[in-house]
Amino acid sequence: MSDSISELTSQIQTFVDDRDWRKFHNAKDLAVAIAAEAGELMQHFVWQQEEQIEKRLEKNREEIASEIADVAILLFEFADNLGFKLGDVMQAKLAYNNVRYPVEKSRGNNLKYSEL
Amino acid sequence: MSDSISELTSQIQTFVDDRDWRKFHNAKDLAVAIAAEAGELMQHFVWQQEEQIEKRLEKNREEIASEIADVAILLFEFADNLGFKLGDVMQAKLAYNNVRYPVEKSRGNNLKYSEL
Amino acid sequence: MSDSISELTSQIQTFVDDRDWRKFHNAKDLAVAIAAEAGELMQHFVWQQEEQIEKRLEKNREEIASEIADVAILLFEFADNLGFKLGDVMQAKLAYNNVRYPVEKSRGNNLKYSEL
Amino acid sequence: MSDSISELTSQIQTFVDDRDWRKFHNAKDLAVAIAAEAGELMQHFVWQQEEQIEKRLEKNREEIASEIADVAILLFEFADNLGFKLGDVMQAKLAYNNVRYPVEKSRGNNLKYSEL
Repeated sequence: MSDSISELTSQIQTFVDDRDWRKFHNAKDLAVAIAAEAGELMQHFVWQQEEQIEKRLEKNREEIASEIADVAILLFEFADNLGFKLGDVMQAKLAYNNVRYPVEKSRGNNLKYSEL
Repeated sequence: MSDSISELTSQIQTFVDDRDWRKFHNAKDLAVAIAAEAGELMQHFVWQQEEQIEKRLEKNREEIASEIADVAILLFEFADNLGFKLGDVMQAKLAYNNVRYPVEKSRGNNLKYSEL
Repeated sequence: MSDSISELTSQIQTFVDDRDWRKFHNAKDLAVAIAAEAGELMQHFVWQQEEQIEKRLEKNREEIASEIADVAILLFEFADNLGFKLGDVMQAKLAYNNVRYPVEKSRGNNLKYSEL
Repeated sequence: MSDSISELTSQIQTFVDDRDWRKFHNAKDLAVAIAAEAGELMQHFVWQQEEQIEKRLEKNREEIASEIADVAILLFEFADNLGFKLGDVMQAKLAYNNVRYPVEKSRGNNLKYSEL
């Protein structure tokens, strides 16, 4: 059931526990690892100009999928370790963003909520 | 149904489309935003020593949940924009990691697969 | 003499030692702090489109200078802690880049050395 | 004269201009590249525990020096492109930090200025 956050989280935690890695996966090291993996994902686009991005995506499609998975796997574990249901946290943030970025004010512009 | 990646992704894409933001959300800018949000998440742990982490988590629990959500929301959108099912990509990576990190070799140590 | 790397490094180390902070400034925490500060610097440009960058630079000129300084101060300390002369390390890398990116091959294009 | 920021900056700008790369080096792409390189530097310490850091430093000494140089080279160029003298900006920030982190209050603790 790869669409279920809780199922995926359970698979991830089993993977970690099978290797006795929980002792390494404290909150700080997880946050650092997430940022490092997000940096690897971004690496694919460094210096790329607008018209080059599509080609880059085609060429590195597998690696990019793999980097996305790396960030997601760590993020699912992190949320779970802290006792959060990731989906609930995401919906709460979406609801909050809905207030901060009212459709009529933010439509078609990329201003930050503090600048609206 | 906040446990379903596809449901959450659909909510996120509606949020983006309601604001006509798809034109800003090219792959490069999404990757940059994900790395920036992951950096904000990491900020909570900069200079923190092992014995301080628990207190930090308690004190900043809400902000940390909010940063996790920020990374996750962008990551779900990114995967979807590239035509990936995030859960499938994650399971593929877990299966690959299972090969790279055999339980018997990686149990209890934090060596990289290339160092095992 | 604010043009001298060694003078600035000496000022930075005095600042750190005056506060007895050397015990916090191990290599890992310095590398994490540098990445976090570089993330803050990047924050100023998230979602910004080409035609918006100049205005952003004008508006946030002081903050951007401050973020650049944060990264630089930590980087100078880091290099010094590891026993490197930062300027020497930079010149060695420039010489190496000169070999990896021959002028005739890299002129006017943004290909990585591995793609030239 | 590898101790002089202005000399090194001049060498860097010559390197960039020889390759006609200034057109790629807008502020956003430079900030993104700096964050990506800082991420690579941090990669060396991901999951590393306190007692492993020294060994890691010894083993990867050359690569770490190279990553430090990458961040520094881009940072020197960035400051110069924005019209800042990096050393002046650093000294201004050190002076500001001196006010935010009074020796008597911050000595021996790692609290943020906002928590002092």
